[in-house]
Amino acid sequence: MREDLSMPAAPAIDVDGWVCPMPLRDAPNIVMGHGGGGAMSGELIEHLFLPAFGAAADAGMGDSAVFAVDGTRLAFSTDSFVVKPLVFPGGSIGELAVNGTVNDLAMAGARPLVLSTAFILEEGTALSEIAHVAEALGTAASAAGVSLVTGDTKVVDAGHGDGIFINTAGIGVLDEGVDIRPERAAPGDVVMVSGDIGVHGIAVMSCREGLEFGTTVLSDTAPLAGLVSAMLDTGADLHVLRDPTRGGVAATLNEIARAAGIGVSLEETALPVPAAVRDACGLLGLDPVYVANEGKLVAFVAPADADRVLAAMRAHPLGARAAVIGTCVEEHPGMVVARTALGGTRVVDLPAGEQLPRIC
Amino acid sequence: MREDLSMPAAPAIDVDGWVCPMPLRDAPNIVMGHGGGGAMSGELIEHLFLPAFGAAADAGMGDSAVFAVDGTRLAFSTDSFVVKPLVFPGGSIGELAVNGTVNDLAMAGARPLVLSTAFILEEGTALSEIAHVAEALGTAASAAGVSLVTGDTKVVDAGHGDGIFINTAGIGVLDEGVDIRPERAAPGDVVMVSGDIGVHGIAVMSCREGLEFGTTVLSDTAPLAGLVSAMLDTGADLHVLRDPTRGGVAATLNEIARAAGIGVSLEETALPVPAAVRDACGLLGLDPVYVANEGKLVAFVAPADADRVLAAMRAHPLGARAAVIGTCVEEHPGMVVARTALGGTRVVDLPAGEQLPRIC
Repeated sequence: MREDLSMPAAPAIDVDGWVCPMPLRDAPNIVMGHGGGGAMSGELIEHLFLPAFGAAADAGMGDSAVFAVDGTRLAFSTDSFVVKPLVFPGGSIGELAVNGTVNDLAMAGARPLVLSTAFILEEGTALSEIAHVAEALGTAASAAGVSLVTGDTKVVDAGHGDGIFINTAGIGVLDEGVDIRPERAAPGDVVMVSGDIGVHGIAVMSCREGLEFGTTVLSDTAPLAGLVSAMLDTGADLHVLRDPTRGGVAATLNEIARAAGIGVSLEETALPVPAAVRDACGLLGLDPVYVANEGKLVAFVAPADADRVLAAMRAHPLGARAAVIGTCVEEHPGMVVARTALGGTRVVDLPAGEQLPRIC
Repeated sequence: MREDLSMPAAPAIDVDGWVCPMPLRDAPNIVMGHGGGGAMSGELIEHLFLPAFGAAADAGMGDSAVFAVDGTRLAFSTDSFVVKPLVFPGGSIGELAVNGTVNDLAMAGARPLVLSTAFILEEGTALSEIAHVAEALGTAASAAGVSLVTGDTKVVDAGHGDGIFINTAGIGVLDEGVDIRPERAAPGDVVMVSGDIGVHGIAVMSCREGLEFGTTVLSDTAPLAGLVSAMLDTGADLHVLRDPTRGGVAATLNEIARAAGIGVSLEETALPVPAAVRDACGLLGLDPVYVANEGKLVAFVAPADADRVLAAMRAHPLGARAAVIGTCVEEHPGMVVARTALGGTRVVDLPAGEQLPRIC
């Protein structure tokens, strides 16, 4: 995600003496799309945050950081959760807050150890709602095997928050030899996904005010460290792991393609999309490949290792419906090209902004 | 902060079948006081969050956690920042977000290494304002010697946030033999503060809408790891360090008194209170001992070490006005009792809620 994601060159715009460093798609203000995990999010980081942070910013400042302390390699990650509504089919902001950060650590190949939890509560929020969310958070932490070791609580006046926002940060440990990062994707790699896609996004949208539609889709929120551990236990050389959350599988594959300077050839018919997700996407005018997941991973694996990694995934409860969805190629570097059901091809772009706001 | 901070027993109240686990001071909803760092904050943690988190919560879940990974002792801390206004005399939410977490690590005796930064941005916020805050954050991180290694950005719809909220989490390393925590306070300990108190709270209040008053008070926000390092270099056995933020010196001393089961005898006249803070407090009806600081520390030191620790503090730019403000006693365990200017005594209580909302 560190490469230039900007739109075709746009002139810098001077606003009251301040020269906006970003290609402006709209007014010189934050719009919902800046939080979508797509191209606009990348522009905000690349053109505004990183230059502003200056020398203090680590060049790699991504979803998680890996660094060594006294010879021990640690992974460190953070996410804030602003999902709306707070409770949705299959989970709540409590489970997301644990699993989101646990999964960012697991995608670096780390064993998650501890989490911090920081709540921003809006004045007037029912204590019963907070207790429900906190219980879900505690249960998810126990299930993921992480301890909640430190925290913070802030309160903002009514009308300046939205019930409950949660930030978690987490620390994990990397075993020797583990080196999993987007830059390691290489032509020939087999690209897999651990199961059905688009489930979380549709579960949340199904209960959004004004959008209610009947569906049996439950969020797939789950901690993936156990699945990653089973994959590592095969002894395979895992090149890249990534959980396709905001922006879905499309955003994840584009980010990896850009980071590694490779192309991804995607088999559209191989994507495991449940019928209920396909139906709901039809109703909402969405493409499942852009819809968020909270309990799935995408893996890039050297071809010699692909079969045993796929077998290990399928033997794990969270990978039972794992599938090969494509390959890593030398052609069209930085791009994802899908072969469609009709035998044609189409470019699967990085989404610009946000199809589904506040999905996590 | 783990002991029982509850009010005299209040009956549990059943709200629509949900039995509130907390002594209710008001409706069964969040009020601003729950974010004040005083008794109500303690009740929320003690009676709601910790039971809800269950087995996943570490017993010590405080301002920062210390734990060992492969023999290396790490400190881990998090804070969210919701200060209003975002920019105030002497700083902004950017400096606070760095110094607040750096100081929580330093108060455990740790050398801060890395920070995560997570922004929750409100739709419509000016990019120029975000850039200004991010620059302040980057400059503060460089000054504190920490790297910004990972981050997150979320956007919430207009009217559901307040411009910019920032969460930071940080990791630090503890040298061998360092053991600094509230439970180590012991009768006989000399209690010191590193400089003028009440400065941050008054600086922020001075520019609050509807409260503007002329003052030259600038926030004292500063990273304290260097000062702590200078204190450790004396070889002294530092028992407790704590930065008196929300709830001021009064809340900090009460928390330490309760954690260690000791009493604190405070010399009111020894508290370094600048004239401008004293004047503003008079105007606002506040007691400086309850007003927040963002660049000060309170230290509990064995009497044999007190002189050299005080000298080391005074030799450091951030401790030039350090002062002995009291002693740790066996009497009145869990309580702070001040000797007043007139020679009388008064109990300095843990504040209930919040005198100054959204001060950090």
